[in-house]
Amino acid sequence: MPTPAIRAQLAAFQGFMTDLFQKDFLLTWEHPTEEIKAIVTLAETLKQLHQAGYSYRAFDTGLAISIFRDNSTRTRFSFASAASALGFTLSDLDEQKSQVAHGETVRETANMISFLAEVIGIRDDMFLGEGNKYMREVGDALTDGAQQGVLHRRPSLINLQCDIDHPTQSLADLAWLKKHFGSLENLKGKKIAMTWAYSPSYGKPLSVPQGVIGLFTRFGMDVTLAHPKGYEVMDDVVEVAKRQSAESGGKFTVTNSMSDAFAGADIVYPKSWAPFKAMEERTELYGNGDFDGIKSLEKKLLKQNAEHKDWECTEELMAKTKNGKALYLHCLPADITGVSCEAGEVAATVFDRYRDPLYKQASFKPYVIAAMIFLAKTKDPAAMLKQLEKRGELRHLGI
Amino acid sequence: MPTPAIRAQLAAFQGFMTDLFQKDFLLTWEHPTEEIKAIVTLAETLKQLHQAGYSYRAFDTGLAISIFRDNSTRTRFSFASAASALGFTLSDLDEQKSQVAHGETVRETANMISFLAEVIGIRDDMFLGEGNKYMREVGDALTDGAQQGVLHRRPSLINLQCDIDHPTQSLADLAWLKKHFGSLENLKGKKIAMTWAYSPSYGKPLSVPQGVIGLFTRFGMDVTLAHPKGYEVMDDVVEVAKRQSAESGGKFTVTNSMSDAFAGADIVYPKSWAPFKAMEERTELYGNGDFDGIKSLEKKLLKQNAEHKDWECTEELMAKTKNGKALYLHCLPADITGVSCEAGEVAATVFDRYRDPLYKQASFKPYVIAAMIFLAKTKDPAAMLKQLEKRGELRHLGI
Amino acid sequence: MPTPAIRAQLAAFQGFMTDLFQKDFLLTWEHPTEEIKAIVTLAETLKQLHQAGYSYRAFDTGLAISIFRDNSTRTRFSFASAASALGFTLSDLDEQKSQVAHGETVRETANMISFLAEVIGIRDDMFLGEGNKYMREVGDALTDGAQQGVLHRRPSLINLQCDIDHPTQSLADLAWLKKHFGSLENLKGKKIAMTWAYSPSYGKPLSVPQGVIGLFTRFGMDVTLAHPKGYEVMDDVVEVAKRQSAESGGKFTVTNSMSDAFAGADIVYPKSWAPFKAMEERTELYGNGDFDGIKSLEKKLLKQNAEHKDWECTEELMAKTKNGKALYLHCLPADITGVSCEAGEVAATVFDRYRDPLYKQASFKPYVIAAMIFLAKTKDPAAMLKQLEKRGELRHLGI
Repeated sequence: MPTPAIRAQLAAFQGFMTDLFQKDFLLTWEHPTEEIKAIVTLAETLKQLHQAGYSYRAFDTGLAISIFRDNSTRTRFSFASAASALGFTLSDLDEQKSQVAHGETVRETANMISFLAEVIGIRDDMFLGEGNKYMREVGDALTDGAQQGVLHRRPSLINLQCDIDHPTQSLADLAWLKKHFGSLENLKGKKIAMTWAYSPSYGKPLSVPQGVIGLFTRFGMDVTLAHPKGYEVMDDVVEVAKRQSAESGGKFTVTNSMSDAFAGADIVYPKSWAPFKAMEERTELYGNGDFDGIKSLEKKLLKQNAEHKDWECTEELMAKTKNGKALYLHCLPADITGVSCEAGEVAATVFDRYRDPLYKQASFKPYVIAAMIFLAKTKDPAAMLKQLEKRGELRHLGI
Repeated sequence: MPTPAIRAQLAAFQGFMTDLFQKDFLLTWEHPTEEIKAIVTLAETLKQLHQAGYSYRAFDTGLAISIFRDNSTRTRFSFASAASALGFTLSDLDEQKSQVAHGETVRETANMISFLAEVIGIRDDMFLGEGNKYMREVGDALTDGAQQGVLHRRPSLINLQCDIDHPTQSLADLAWLKKHFGSLENLKGKKIAMTWAYSPSYGKPLSVPQGVIGLFTRFGMDVTLAHPKGYEVMDDVVEVAKRQSAESGGKFTVTNSMSDAFAGADIVYPKSWAPFKAMEERTELYGNGDFDGIKSLEKKLLKQNAEHKDWECTEELMAKTKNGKALYLHCLPADITGVSCEAGEVAATVFDRYRDPLYKQASFKPYVIAAMIFLAKTKDPAAMLKQLEKRGELRHLGI
Repeated sequence: MPTPAIRAQLAAFQGFMTDLFQKDFLLTWEHPTEEIKAIVTLAETLKQLHQAGYSYRAFDTGLAISIFRDNSTRTRFSFASAASALGFTLSDLDEQKSQVAHGETVRETANMISFLAEVIGIRDDMFLGEGNKYMREVGDALTDGAQQGVLHRRPSLINLQCDIDHPTQSLADLAWLKKHFGSLENLKGKKIAMTWAYSPSYGKPLSVPQGVIGLFTRFGMDVTLAHPKGYEVMDDVVEVAKRQSAESGGKFTVTNSMSDAFAGADIVYPKSWAPFKAMEERTELYGNGDFDGIKSLEKKLLKQNAEHKDWECTEELMAKTKNGKALYLHCLPADITGVSCEAGEVAATVFDRYRDPLYKQASFKPYVIAAMIFLAKTKDPAAMLKQLEKRGELRHLGI
């Protein structure tokens, strides 16, 4: 039987009013804060159930499909873990092995794979203006398929990182901050510095910084976005951050000084990304098949990056944070100076000191994804949790 | 508890006498019509159970292995869906990652992967005279392994498309026609035009047209095979079609006019394929390692194809069909003029008008495969269905 | 309900005292003989349960992760089979599709994939001094992750072949010998010839011969290791073999004559491997990125191999064994003269005569792996088996 802590957690979930059933999850700012809180609370509950050895397998069969249009380790295994825990069969659409390359449309593929699918997770973060658009195209095709009676039920989409947002990352980050600081209320007034950092690689997605400012501005935090000139993020997301910040009684600042951002920060999130304008140019070059243009753009960007090698999360910078002890966040893998590259996003001593917290930050992702799927597939989630509690099954027979 | 419709469906299945237990399914014409009907009826039943949210998971563990020697989206996901629904773990044999390339024999590999396997689905459609032969080689190895006590039980093979037949496609097509026209009896006398159509690509398998004439001639239909001269299909299958047609009181005609085939047709199935003789030549060239020869054959075939660009399913042709409203079929993906290619198998307006029916046609495949596996692995399928009905479990706990 | 034979088997297991819970299995000689016997006995039990149609699914969810850094068919499917039978979701870490290539550390990846993992199987046999080291690095990272509260529980590692040992192979071999000769006691005094054999390929791992001499010397056997001069195995393993042989009252001999090794042998295991020294050189060249050096080493080794084409398991040699009827073993796939190569490890007639026994030898591997996982994940394995017996569930509902 569940422990008192889990019972409390299960009880905490009862109050939420969510409208996530049979919906997609593509951008955090499309969802009311109530739903964000519901996901985080359910993720915590599932994590506690896992730790205590309980099963929350709510399905006996069905496909959970993943489509990765970019490399992935942690999101891939997080999705696989969530699918397994809920009882789904994982099925990866490898576009190289499928007939997608043969001119098949998105609409067709979306329907063809979905006859017995319950959820589809998609990562498509390579080209600006493409990833989120692709997800919506898939979503529209599924809606149409369900309406026309092609699909018995419409599988729900989970954004596993697009060109705009990385909701499973930012929600895992939020769950970790809640755990670390004790509650979402405690985040009020806390300063988080989402800052650009130097990396010798090129073209990293903007979805993490955008996801962070697009989510944390909802909780009354002092959110500072810092980057060198020329490394602006998408205007639309900056507008979201401004609006949410105003609504939540927080603060949203953009600065070109890493040092200003770190000053007095409770939390720092230094991470490289590519400039938005350059990524727009790249998408256009790619659209025109101008591969020479892409190569020369890459060269230009690496050179531009190299002008900002001083944007590194050093011990000196960390010393400027609140009591010199800000919580360091990263979505991983980080470019660690002297470890994975000559000069990178973070000094080795800083990274080493925060290794365990970083891994704990990452540990929330499988449960966040499981919570998203659970809420998308369950009409009355609170009743379902009660039933799981009543069942009280262990994952391991007879321990 | 199952709805009355499902109960009727379950009852409908009770009468069939089948001998599919522990057998392979390689060519539809190797099986009596009773077994064909049993598969289609069971597929419909499983589809209804899925729609109503019921579980038909009959296994708690075991491997369902897929071997794809050619690209696949819908058959791959259909097999995965069927495996998941029945409770199997899907395991794909990726011949690139295995030691098969290292000179291991078919006989050995077949046994090595099968110790805990229940079913093996194989697609091998690239070379004439190879695919079906390979499946039988695997089957013989499994029979031998089971007889020698190497395997506790012999997994059953499912042909997921070979050089001769594509039974999971043609049976899904049949299930769709049954649904569309109300019953198999209603197919009697209906005219189906299985016609070649132009495609800018080369070497498409003959298994679909052969599968169609090899199956639909059993149901008293007026089956017309149409293709330009030089695009003949295998003689053996034409013989099967003739024989079955005579037995079933139907008609089987071969013509070189697409227009004649469409005239008054109830159903049209325009689809490109490679000429049989050319595919024989290709297999021989491949056997001799004559890759220059293959390239020049490819060139010749594309040129030959291009002489028949008028073999396109246009609005004009559709107008010639019964009331101008024949049901358009395709195994997908289709080469759509102006969409996936400059000139192709079908006009965009025709394809667009039939999109939903086409997707519904495809939607039967997972259930056809599940039915095939169910019948191959279950000694008394009717008793098993009764037991599933009695269990009455939902796929989703507590909905 | 289990048959009397299975009940006896289940009873036989009750007596073993093992300390395998939450441990890794990396080298057989790190484990007391009691644990080796427990694994073999449990593997036999699970095999009998499978044959009788019983389920031993002890888990309802959780990941079983495989990491294959080299090609594999039988070990890959054995691991998949074991994972399925126990109820895990199989998740393969394909390092090409992950971000591992992007400078991510072993420590990080190990934690990132393991949040809901129960077991991780690793094959890493390509470079001397690397594979086993890598496994221990992963193991240390997992231990650290569990201690720091990053992981709720530490997944256990299973060595699926490294540069030093191939425990799932040698234990499957042992289970087969036990079956063939009636008991482990009956192996006492039996002569097994683990001999090098010629192969036209290069760089085959030493883990099989090392695994064999490192395991069979524990059972009072007369273990003879034979190879041409220059094909020595690792000194450390030879020392293990010597020590164990002395302790068990057996014999351990190294000879440079295949004929001497075969003389009077009860069991022969002729198999190619690369010379240890050459593999050390290769690892060094690889470390220095000296690919020209590797190529010239390869050339040299193939030439050196070719000097020993007479090291073939021929009918003549087989005639020298005990009554001319020694049991022929191989881990498969074998290089068969005139079949998979011009000249190889074994004559076609010898291989053909032993095909079924060879396949039976291989058939134990899935159950050995399942037994290893079962013992690593179950606190009281005897109680768990009793519970499985009491449950008495069939794998196939209602057969």
